[in-house]
Amino acid sequence: MERKTNGAGGVVRVRVPATSANLGPGFDSLGIALTMYNELELELYREEKFDIESFGEGAEMLPTDGTNMIWGAVRRLLSRIGQADEYRGMKLRMYSRIPVSRGLGSSAAAIVGGLRAANEWLGRPLGKKELLGIATELEGHPDNVAPAVYGGFSVSVTYGGGPESISFRPDIPLKAVVAVPDFTLSTRLARSVLPDTVPRADGVFNVGRAALLAAAMARGKAGYLKMALEDRLHQPYRKSLIPGFDDVTEAAGKAGAAGCVLSGAGPSIIAFTLEKEAAVGDAMVEAFRANGTEARAIVLSIDREGAKVISHRREW
Amino acid sequence: MERKTNGAGGVVRVRVPATSANLGPGFDSLGIALTMYNELELELYREEKFDIESFGEGAEMLPTDGTNMIWGAVRRLLSRIGQADEYRGMKLRMYSRIPVSRGLGSSAAAIVGGLRAANEWLGRPLGKKELLGIATELEGHPDNVAPAVYGGFSVSVTYGGGPESISFRPDIPLKAVVAVPDFTLSTRLARSVLPDTVPRADGVFNVGRAALLAAAMARGKAGYLKMALEDRLHQPYRKSLIPGFDDVTEAAGKAGAAGCVLSGAGPSIIAFTLEKEAAVGDAMVEAFRANGTEARAIVLSIDREGAKVISHRREW
Repeated sequence: MERKTNGAGGVVRVRVPATSANLGPGFDSLGIALTMYNELELELYREEKFDIESFGEGAEMLPTDGTNMIWGAVRRLLSRIGQADEYRGMKLRMYSRIPVSRGLGSSAAAIVGGLRAANEWLGRPLGKKELLGIATELEGHPDNVAPAVYGGFSVSVTYGGGPESISFRPDIPLKAVVAVPDFTLSTRLARSVLPDTVPRADGVFNVGRAALLAAAMARGKAGYLKMALEDRLHQPYRKSLIPGFDDVTEAAGKAGAAGCVLSGAGPSIIAFTLEKEAAVGDAMVEAFRANGTEARAIVLSIDREGAKVISHRREW
Repeated sequence: MERKTNGAGGVVRVRVPATSANLGPGFDSLGIALTMYNELELELYREEKFDIESFGEGAEMLPTDGTNMIWGAVRRLLSRIGQADEYRGMKLRMYSRIPVSRGLGSSAAAIVGGLRAANEWLGRPLGKKELLGIATELEGHPDNVAPAVYGGFSVSVTYGGGPESISFRPDIPLKAVVAVPDFTLSTRLARSVLPDTVPRADGVFNVGRAALLAAAMARGKAGYLKMALEDRLHQPYRKSLIPGFDDVTEAAGKAGAAGCVLSGAGPSIIAFTLEKEAAVGDAMVEAFRANGTEARAIVLSIDREGAKVISHRREW
């Protein structure tokens, strides 16, 4: 598919939110965008040249050549619009606040941020839905990339080979308290502990909870969050990978949180609360510590905008 | 729990909607109220005396003594408010349009109708949520009784031993075309064909679809209904009990329906459509007939009120 662009060029600066997927019952489908952001600045080069610098979380892990995952995303977009031969390199500055491999969507943020920036730089040849499609191809599933693209709360499924998503801004003044422990957990390991078959009753249990969570978020029914965040499909199997999981979630509840779940595949644990967010965070950190794990708590809100162009200027 | 009532007395007339549960992915949790109604008139007696007459669908099956399921519901309510000894009989006139044992919530309608009428007759000692609780005890699960009580679209779960439900009026001008075949199917048989364990992927599939259906209904996103009505947890097992199931759902889709699923445990099949509802109904009946089954199609909308007192007068 070849599309005309106006080749806007210059330097594009984008910010993209952290995301938390699964959200208890919504394995592989529910996600929410959080007010913690990575920013990146991008310029495309016609020549095969990479000028990449990275700052903040995971900076030392980001390749500074063509193996960089952001370049992978940009190249996929260029192929999609038939311009893979026209742009062969990039200048990138990455400013990361989202912790890496902690279940907060850092790879989705990198991919979506790169796509959003390149798309803007090229004069917006693609729409958000097409960016969601490319990001899902690269990430493998849509549950983090959909809220990263749209902001708010997302329900995503795969249909006809591509992602479909309903995203909206929950009408609840929720705070999200994220407790980030000082160890990483690979999604691959977290997936390996899941069984191939489950009791039908557990599947049915999650069906009701996930639908209730979507309805509660969509209709502003905060009182249902506690029950709507219950899960039997992934946390019971994964919690052994996170020492103190039960203690941390229980401590969050006692401190006032409406519900508390694994963020993505973990190891971060996210509590949703309408009040006492600082106390909830302290209680979670304390419970992690009692289990021999150092952790930090970050109080966030729900991001309502998704990936967003902050500036598009002529030069660096 | 003893409560004061003002003992309103007289004759109460109530109407209560048909309901369709499961709705594809939402096994045991999603339900919707339909604009097809049973009506009943009730008076409580202090003496143990039953004057019961029934008209319309299933009239011949309704016991005219104290074994009547509506009396069972009324007696449960009387016990709950500490007046089981004060009222020992009733006069009841039942006017039924909802087909019996067809997956359209006729038993939920009887229970909810009886409770709503008795509660009104007694001066409203209980609220809707308490009526939902009693009805769920009697029916065994809340997915039909919640929309019968509240109207609209309901997401229900069991939590802490009781039902919890978010009900709302979908902001989509949906028509529901119900094809009712000329045979009955017991919920017990329909449940017996379900396996105890399922592939985790099927559970996850339904989690996403059920959440998407709730979000689509809550946010008025009709375009997502087709994918949101897909199911892998019950229809694949149950469809062998309904000759022609695949042909009927396919015919509905070809005629313009957004989606088509088993209504409750069947055997009725319900198509949701924004257009061409008559053609959809004809196509479904024709497909049933090609499979050797006579059926009738009924075009309905979404009921928005739930069980409702129509009149409360002094005497018969």
